[in-house]
Amino acid sequence: MKFKAALQSLQTYEAGKPIELVVREFGISANEVIKLASNENPHGCSKKVQQCVAQKLASMHLYPDDSFYQLKEALGAKHKVDTSQIIIGAGSDQIIEFAIHAKCAKNDGILMAGVTFAMYEIYGRIAEAKIIRTKSSTHNLSEFTELYKQHSPSIIFLCVPNNPLGESLKVSDIQTFLKQINKECLVVIDGAYQEYATFKDEEMRISVAEFIRDFPNVLYLGTFSKVYGLGGMRVGYGIAQQEIIQTLYKLRPPFNITTLSLVAAIEALKDEEFIKYSLQDCFTQMKQYEDFCRQRGIRYIPSFANFITLFLDGLGDSTTLAQKMLEKGVIIRNLASYGLNAVRITIGTKEQNQRALSLMSALL
Amino acid sequence: MKFKAALQSLQTYEAGKPIELVVREFGISANEVIKLASNENPHGCSKKVQQCVAQKLASMHLYPDDSFYQLKEALGAKHKVDTSQIIIGAGSDQIIEFAIHAKCAKNDGILMAGVTFAMYEIYGRIAEAKIIRTKSSTHNLSEFTELYKQHSPSIIFLCVPNNPLGESLKVSDIQTFLKQINKECLVVIDGAYQEYATFKDEEMRISVAEFIRDFPNVLYLGTFSKVYGLGGMRVGYGIAQQEIIQTLYKLRPPFNITTLSLVAAIEALKDEEFIKYSLQDCFTQMKQYEDFCRQRGIRYIPSFANFITLFLDGLGDSTTLAQKMLEKGVIIRNLASYGLNAVRITIGTKEQNQRALSLMSALL
Repeated sequence: MKFKAALQSLQTYEAGKPIELVVREFGISANEVIKLASNENPHGCSKKVQQCVAQKLASMHLYPDDSFYQLKEALGAKHKVDTSQIIIGAGSDQIIEFAIHAKCAKNDGILMAGVTFAMYEIYGRIAEAKIIRTKSSTHNLSEFTELYKQHSPSIIFLCVPNNPLGESLKVSDIQTFLKQINKECLVVIDGAYQEYATFKDEEMRISVAEFIRDFPNVLYLGTFSKVYGLGGMRVGYGIAQQEIIQTLYKLRPPFNITTLSLVAAIEALKDEEFIKYSLQDCFTQMKQYEDFCRQRGIRYIPSFANFITLFLDGLGDSTTLAQKMLEKGVIIRNLASYGLNAVRITIGTKEQNQRALSLMSALL
Repeated sequence: MKFKAALQSLQTYEAGKPIELVVREFGISANEVIKLASNENPHGCSKKVQQCVAQKLASMHLYPDDSFYQLKEALGAKHKVDTSQIIIGAGSDQIIEFAIHAKCAKNDGILMAGVTFAMYEIYGRIAEAKIIRTKSSTHNLSEFTELYKQHSPSIIFLCVPNNPLGESLKVSDIQTFLKQINKECLVVIDGAYQEYATFKDEEMRISVAEFIRDFPNVLYLGTFSKVYGLGGMRVGYGIAQQEIIQTLYKLRPPFNITTLSLVAAIEALKDEEFIKYSLQDCFTQMKQYEDFCRQRGIRYIPSFANFITLFLDGLGDSTTLAQKMLEKGVIIRNLASYGLNAVRITIGTKEQNQRALSLMSALL
């Protein structure tokens, strides 16, 4: 059977490996497998969220309130925006999909960093858009500006902090950049890891309300998958001026998050103590990795997110390292598919990090 | 900001109204609201599923096993197909989306019944496809054949039983129809309500393994949202020959169902007693509606699903009836947006049906 031509060259995306796979393939018991591959919060989610979801289990047959009224009210209060400026997605991934389908006709350009979140390109290629990347792997706004002028893209993605590399951008630099961009070009600011960046450095703090007021072409993305500890529940959101949100709504399938995800996300916003503890512990733990790198002379990118990217350079091959660690029950992310001889490691709990580091120490 | 032209005429889909809305708007307590608008299983889901999900609440932070290994094994055993012939979606809606994006370039045709599941058209219009509908509201295979020959569509949707009307097609008639269709045309058989049709009449039973063996251009869709009682958990699946499934996989975003949904679906397949009870009770209860219609001379379509569609004809206006029932806490589905003066009512529990019928009795 013939399919759309654009799909021929498209590779199926391979996500971080799950614990279940290691159990199946290497016969290691689930309790002994450590997953540091998908940037989940190693502390799980708030106990209060778990209690709340437990009370809702008799409602799994019912579709959620598709207006997501309560969740949008809570997000509106948090970000100081109107609920009409918010759209909820099955992870912020889904908002990326909506944005691309809303803006990109065939051959329209999408501009992004040299190495960044893989779904921008995947959704872009499904829409038959032209993918434009900066030469630099990390975000370099001068290169972005130059390529913007050269190609007039329909969409620009800024991933701040950047996944999978971890660097971020100062708010003032983003603002200067945005002033040069035509209001017809949609600029998506993917803030999936913003809570981490803001905690580490106030100069990174994006005031969403200000941004969408000053730049009506900005779409900000947030998620419950990272510091809120709900990666498995698939809830993200987009914030922009109402005109953009209304258009994205046309692309949204009904009931796009689950009944339990909705309850979990609403409750997760309330437990600020849990968020604060998770952020603090992340950066405390990250020091272990930084010390390890410095002692060993391993190059790394100072990270503003809950993971750290290590370049192996002459020390070996990232595919081999990731595979050997996998066989010992420690899952990390090999970045070979991004064209890098590097691994990305999620900051885990103290014990998880110690195990990962001692294993790496033996293998490198 | 300018968006893709195809979106201008696209209306935002309005789903069945949630209980929460009635509570908010009419101040009726949640316990007193009856929702017979979205074809959920009124018995909820299996208690065993609830227990299983309860044990998984500490894993909400972890993305699911993205291979969906266990679920595909269980579905493979149920439908006697290989796991490589299965794809999992966030509801079968998402498989509809994949199928349309895989097959339809701009102006390609999509053929469907006059009145059928709304998402076929919505996803079709996003892909800028041409929507072709039979004149008859219900499935008329002679009209399908004629329009197929005239337009050579890329995709044909057969919704059996048909939502929102409830009629179904005999397996032998579907087979005769499929023999005339070129193998380049994808035929999607949407079996969201198949369990109900098969329970009512063996002549409706689709053997999925046989179908995809005999017709390599068939994609069968199933869901956990209806008789399995997991509407709020968003899990559906597609079954087809491997060539089709591999292509749909290219369009699938990673982690497209939640960690709890995955556990729930695997467990739901095991509790056959619950399914049998749900099916039996549905058709026992449906008699109340049929008797009511016969006594009142109300036209209805004999239903092979868990809902019944009543045509109001000279008896009044469906929008008024649905609104008046809503104000009394009974949510039914007005079909005015489908161009019909009709309402679709989900078969509820005995008590729910009695309340709905006595209210309708007073209002008509």
